[in-house]
Amino acid sequence: MRNSRRGLVDPFIVMDIVAAAARKEADGQHIIHMEVGQPSTPAPAGARAKLAEELNQSSLGYTVSLGIPELRERIARLYKDWYGVDLDPERVIVTSGSSGAFILAFTALFDDGERLGIGAPGYPSYRQIAKALDIDPVMIETQAANRFQPVPSELPADLAGLMVASPANPSGTMLGHDELAALINACADQGTAFISDEIYHGIEYEKKAVTALEVSDDVYVINSFSKYFSMTGWRVGWMVVPPDHVRTIERLAQNLFVCAPHAAQVAALHALDCEDEMQANLQVYRQNRALMMEGLPKAGFHKIAPPDGAFYIYADVSDLTDDSLSFAAEILDEAGVAVTPGLDFDPDRGAGTLRFCYARATEEIEEGLRRLKRFMSSRGFA
Amino acid sequence: MRNSRRGLVDPFIVMDIVAAAARKEADGQHIIHMEVGQPSTPAPAGARAKLAEELNQSSLGYTVSLGIPELRERIARLYKDWYGVDLDPERVIVTSGSSGAFILAFTALFDDGERLGIGAPGYPSYRQIAKALDIDPVMIETQAANRFQPVPSELPADLAGLMVASPANPSGTMLGHDELAALINACADQGTAFISDEIYHGIEYEKKAVTALEVSDDVYVINSFSKYFSMTGWRVGWMVVPPDHVRTIERLAQNLFVCAPHAAQVAALHALDCEDEMQANLQVYRQNRALMMEGLPKAGFHKIAPPDGAFYIYADVSDLTDDSLSFAAEILDEAGVAVTPGLDFDPDRGAGTLRFCYARATEEIEEGLRRLKRFMSSRGFA
Repeated sequence: MRNSRRGLVDPFIVMDIVAAAARKEADGQHIIHMEVGQPSTPAPAGARAKLAEELNQSSLGYTVSLGIPELRERIARLYKDWYGVDLDPERVIVTSGSSGAFILAFTALFDDGERLGIGAPGYPSYRQIAKALDIDPVMIETQAANRFQPVPSELPADLAGLMVASPANPSGTMLGHDELAALINACADQGTAFISDEIYHGIEYEKKAVTALEVSDDVYVINSFSKYFSMTGWRVGWMVVPPDHVRTIERLAQNLFVCAPHAAQVAALHALDCEDEMQANLQVYRQNRALMMEGLPKAGFHKIAPPDGAFYIYADVSDLTDDSLSFAAEILDEAGVAVTPGLDFDPDRGAGTLRFCYARATEEIEEGLRRLKRFMSSRGFA
Repeated sequence: MRNSRRGLVDPFIVMDIVAAAARKEADGQHIIHMEVGQPSTPAPAGARAKLAEELNQSSLGYTVSLGIPELRERIARLYKDWYGVDLDPERVIVTSGSSGAFILAFTALFDDGERLGIGAPGYPSYRQIAKALDIDPVMIETQAANRFQPVPSELPADLAGLMVASPANPSGTMLGHDELAALINACADQGTAFISDEIYHGIEYEKKAVTALEVSDDVYVINSFSKYFSMTGWRVGWMVVPPDHVRTIERLAQNLFVCAPHAAQVAALHALDCEDEMQANLQVYRQNRALMMEGLPKAGFHKIAPPDGAFYIYADVSDLTDDSLSFAAEILDEAGVAVTPGLDFDPDRGAGTLRFCYARATEEIEEGLRRLKRFMSSRGFA
């Protein structure tokens, strides 16, 4: 049968690592997982208990397309609590994960062939979703000196949109208020739509992340319950859009998604009241981060920077290898540690980088660092 | 902020009816719902009980993008049980509802500007999703004499794809094996991709629906747990694709969705073993259908046909009105019954049609028919 051109997107390389690790586990090997970006914790216990009640009380049919009104109101309140921002709940759209938000945002904002600026290194699906929707992804090679975030002077011409993430994946760096404002203003000057991926907000170590809504209302902000709220598999997120875009997004959501999963919306509503559990998870990430910042250099990974947020460390291994894919495969084979080659995040320079995720239990991180050190010693790198 | 052209899709008109009905209920009025196409029953009790257990045992993180392997195997077995078809589970892709399947299928198959044939009347989101993805929807005005299904002689030239539904929404008509084969073969001759929407399979009254997989392996088949399995709000469905398309769809699914909701996949797996509950629901629909076929003509809706499947009756009211939108609004205002104007399903001829859904409890159907009869009598129509 026929194929489209745009449908031939690249795979997530990390998924090949996941599959290889799964095969080893099926063979009885023990693997430490530092590849996939997800907590090993479930949704908050309080949220699961409320959902278990609801399972017997509601038919959990379709919700309205923009999401359960109480959930939209509760999310709006989060902006007051976290940032001191007054947000009209009408501007909050509950989505099928941040994935659903990207599809809605990209179709609402861009026509075929239009150019979307994306920083490299960055989340690989930005460019694959763009390609599948016939949007032209324009990669911006960010600099270590700019902490792998784009700066206004680097923005290519004729961008219809700019996609920014803070804290970023894979680097974990954040944009301060001034840096964010500079980018938003540069985009506004050129009529470029600004999309802020804030999925790692809440997972911050030194200071609070800044939301684009502190700078402007004329932006798209995308977030999710996957990371801070530990609900990856539930596929529920949200998006905040300018007031005059709500109706457009509503029509798209009615037709493209009908609604976000009802059970996940119920769980998300209650997860917002489980702050203690989330803070306990955050303490684990904080401890793991310290272990990684100490242990990775001892294992021979010297070119790293402390992440401001998220739960990744992006290591420059270009002095150790020019083939991060093979290097990651060797680490998996010989050390039993699954890590992600940088090619997912930066198609050009990622041959010399690795991403380590430290979202799992601290004992696993400790064991992973021991194994990495042994492996690197055997190579003469540590 | 900027808007795209393709993002300006039409709303689901039925959602305006839903909103108007909700306002009346908020004012204390009692409304009979014959508008939205969903069962009022929850997911099967057996499925909910298993999910409640799983909530305490698993972190319910991301699943692999093609879906939980056990679920893919169990769905493949359904094809043996229902149709006697041997299906390789590798060809089954678990999706975020049929909505997610449409997005995957359309991006995998069609490039921008290509033409997708869609029968009218039909599910309105086919054409809105196509528009949002820059695909050109080509409406095929089907004939009552062909039971509102397209026939090979009506197919426009240069179609990249044809979208067919059996049982159809809103007409409830089914394509027999020969009719389906004629369409599939006509498409194969022209290199036109054939997509079969089988979301109402299982809800059949006279004979079993035929799957396109009984005719050919070179088709896309889309189905869902929403209707027969009574799981609308869970957003879990599936798609069967030709073997050489699995990898393309996997890459798209990794990037566009990551995975279908994990909790919904768990519930769906167990719903497949709750046949008794689904058959009890089906008995209710069967009884409601008989009541509607008897009661609607008595209420003055004479131009109807018994549906082969699904839970809708599509009424020709062109001798009563040339403005189905206003007529539906009057029925809601004066009779307290929410029904859907045909304009959602047929932009041209739908001004003279209404869709009645009979998926709710039998007592509600009986009361709805009483109210409709009173309303129509007051107008001199019954």
